[in-house]
Amino acid sequence: MNVTADSSRVQAYIDEHWGRHLEEVRAFVRQPSISADGTGMGDCARMLVRWIERLGGTGEIVPTKGWPVVYGRIDAGAPHTILLYGMYDVQPVLGETWVVGDPFGGEIMTPPFAPELGPCLINRGVMNQKGPLVNTLLALEALKSVHGTLPMNVIFMVEGEEEMGSQHLPDFVRENRDRLQADAAFFAFLSQDLNGKVLSYLGVKGILFMEFTARGGDWGGPTVRAVHGSNAVWYGNPAWRLTHALASMLSTDQKHILVDGFYDEVEPADAHDEALLATLAPTLDPDERLRGDEVRCFKYDLDGVPLLRKYLYQPTLNIDGIVGGHWQEGTKTIIPHEAKAKVDVRMVRDMDPRTTYERIRAHLDRHGFADIAVEILDAYPWAKTRSDDPPVQAMIETYHQFGHEPEIWPHLAGSAPFYLFTDKKWLNIPVAMGGLGHGGRVHSPNEYATVQGMKDAQQWIAAYFLNLAETLAQ
Amino acid sequence: MNVTADSSRVQAYIDEHWGRHLEEVRAFVRQPSISADGTGMGDCARMLVRWIERLGGTGEIVPTKGWPVVYGRIDAGAPHTILLYGMYDVQPVLGETWVVGDPFGGEIMTPPFAPELGPCLINRGVMNQKGPLVNTLLALEALKSVHGTLPMNVIFMVEGEEEMGSQHLPDFVRENRDRLQADAAFFAFLSQDLNGKVLSYLGVKGILFMEFTARGGDWGGPTVRAVHGSNAVWYGNPAWRLTHALASMLSTDQKHILVDGFYDEVEPADAHDEALLATLAPTLDPDERLRGDEVRCFKYDLDGVPLLRKYLYQPTLNIDGIVGGHWQEGTKTIIPHEAKAKVDVRMVRDMDPRTTYERIRAHLDRHGFADIAVEILDAYPWAKTRSDDPPVQAMIETYHQFGHEPEIWPHLAGSAPFYLFTDKKWLNIPVAMGGLGHGGRVHSPNEYATVQGMKDAQQWIAAYFLNLAETLAQ
Repeated sequence: MNVTADSSRVQAYIDEHWGRHLEEVRAFVRQPSISADGTGMGDCARMLVRWIERLGGTGEIVPTKGWPVVYGRIDAGAPHTILLYGMYDVQPVLGETWVVGDPFGGEIMTPPFAPELGPCLINRGVMNQKGPLVNTLLALEALKSVHGTLPMNVIFMVEGEEEMGSQHLPDFVRENRDRLQADAAFFAFLSQDLNGKVLSYLGVKGILFMEFTARGGDWGGPTVRAVHGSNAVWYGNPAWRLTHALASMLSTDQKHILVDGFYDEVEPADAHDEALLATLAPTLDPDERLRGDEVRCFKYDLDGVPLLRKYLYQPTLNIDGIVGGHWQEGTKTIIPHEAKAKVDVRMVRDMDPRTTYERIRAHLDRHGFADIAVEILDAYPWAKTRSDDPPVQAMIETYHQFGHEPEIWPHLAGSAPFYLFTDKKWLNIPVAMGGLGHGGRVHSPNEYATVQGMKDAQQWIAAYFLNLAETLAQ
Repeated sequence: MNVTADSSRVQAYIDEHWGRHLEEVRAFVRQPSISADGTGMGDCARMLVRWIERLGGTGEIVPTKGWPVVYGRIDAGAPHTILLYGMYDVQPVLGETWVVGDPFGGEIMTPPFAPELGPCLINRGVMNQKGPLVNTLLALEALKSVHGTLPMNVIFMVEGEEEMGSQHLPDFVRENRDRLQADAAFFAFLSQDLNGKVLSYLGVKGILFMEFTARGGDWGGPTVRAVHGSNAVWYGNPAWRLTHALASMLSTDQKHILVDGFYDEVEPADAHDEALLATLAPTLDPDERLRGDEVRCFKYDLDGVPLLRKYLYQPTLNIDGIVGGHWQEGTKTIIPHEAKAKVDVRMVRDMDPRTTYERIRAHLDRHGFADIAVEILDAYPWAKTRSDDPPVQAMIETYHQFGHEPEIWPHLAGSAPFYLFTDKKWLNIPVAMGGLGHGGRVHSPNEYATVQGMKDAQQWIAAYFLNLAETLAQ
């Protein structure tokens, strides 16, 4: 097989069929699939199965205790197999304001917040991760149209609970281990930043997502309903209780987590990662990061490698949301009977979700907040791959073919359940994530991806599959 | 005029017409009038005007910068005039669960949470204060039907913003001072507790209702939209900021407000009030209070007079509501760009709302929270009357006629803008609030009033007007 020639033909095919391909992308992201409230989940899963069948494979919707996993196979009679991991669920849009009328309208416009990007698809999930997912499907279709077959056998594992913390994916992997055997795993992603630079991440942080609930009880406070606020003079208030409990866990400057033992497993980067940091530091533009997120300053007065070390090797304790009592319009003087906060920890190194939870529980108990309930909604450790693993190697090579020198990061500050692939106790296969294309505002209003980037992404993915087959054959 | 005979005839009239009277009460409370979101406010004001006209008076809906005041007069050619103060707005019901299908259904049922009460009207506003208001109208109608005229001239001032803190009532009083001249003011209320004991309050606490807003800014944090939670490792979070700011203001046991100068004007009860407290203490059943509110214990390990002193002579700092970020179902890992809390202070003695606000502002500034905005939504001082003021005297006498020995409280722990009546700089007339009847769960789901109590209330109010006319004539 002449990979370069094969790749050129597929790229020409995608150029030629781009009008239809773009409409296919729009059709896929227009289908809502919000795991938080269930909107469109079944329809989106069925769309995916039809897609896999169209590619000559067999697809099924496999129930779990939560949202189903879409599982599929395409047998190409090839010596090697790739496991395509993806997610068909997206973040909620409740309460958000978008520049487009409908966050699921598949609208193409030049974003007023970044006109230099040119035409973009502005739609929930277009970057995270339904755009990349449908790009992969279209790349496979192009490969098949041009070559009559695929360079590798393909297994699909597309979950519907990533945005809820992939809670039932471990069960699925455990129960379907035999039919998830592959040589490498891949997660498609739009890896270019605002300037077109390719960012490549060799891993992810872990996460522990919790819900704290303070409620009236033996300590005092209304137990079943709000009572008149004038009683605050002699009754306790669960909203105050939650406030005090949370405040006890983090220093006022938000730099130090005050939970005993929280940092016990936190260690500096190893030599390999430190080398990557030294390469990364000169290319990091902290001001661009701040501008992109519309934030005026970092917590730390640091720059270069020390700032990157904080970002990548420190855990967080973050309030995602808080609610209690009458927060709506108007005045209502009550003592609420309940207040809640959603709190997440991003975990690094050998931090174990269960141990971390137990330290938080112990902190609350020791500080007199034993009544505050902590429910775990999501929990998994970090995961890392090595730059010489075949799927990473093939990825770097494909970037080079497209004229890009990727900037290699030891891992993302964000989380994904990649331990299921990399961990010896689980599938024990190397995983890569990447691809050309640019998008942004993930988990925020006006999530977008550039139209040009989607085309680049499809061409890149097709070439990547050809390269990976070659790399695995060596 | 023979007050006792006159009173008996009116009581007989109400007995005789009770079926219709009860339907009139139900019709009035069924009309929603939620000032927080505007539901039914105009319709309710027009119902009131029609009521005043039906009583032979003239009524008008007087615009303010907020909800209008219903102003009315009935000229009875009498030597004295009573100013009837009331409110036609009620608390919101958003997010509440009621035992009746519709909080505005005017349903009569024996409440499952207090079956010993027998048939009750369960409806938003039935106690606070639309039930007592329509009872007053029905009492006036009965007086007029029986005697052909009323014992006093009547002025109505019924506001639509009490639940929003009576923000524009001071403007109304200032602008309509000339046509608010009266000998006494009265606010109808259901004054009997669960055991039928009459509680009489000679005043109210003041209030300062604020909204705290923490938002990303020069200190850090996202300024215009939520950003991905993984950035919490290097960006600040407004929800943490609000949490720390609030926590700095109150001790963890919720007993001590930590704002400098907050207690400067707080003083012990005077001799007159201490005498009342000594009489009150043996009759206070703290356990009944706790049971009624479904609270398990007080903040303070106190009883009798010391507990009452805390309740009546201490200010509060209370979180009414708090909100920020993604608090809804599911996990969403974000740093919110904003978090808000509604906080109220119940003010005693010479505590001045403006000074108290300034002390809170200074506390925030001094503790490094200058960026947190504090908006005042409501503010007025406490108000007190004396037990020998004519409207109070007539009230006690009327209770005696109905066989009740009222338990006299120096003031309520709750708030009402009675300073507009009592203060020398305002109307400078004595005010009384009271009446027979029992209700509860004000500002909470399942607000109720007993059916028997509504009838007692109407008969009592008619008698009270006769007594007050007599007292003023002496």
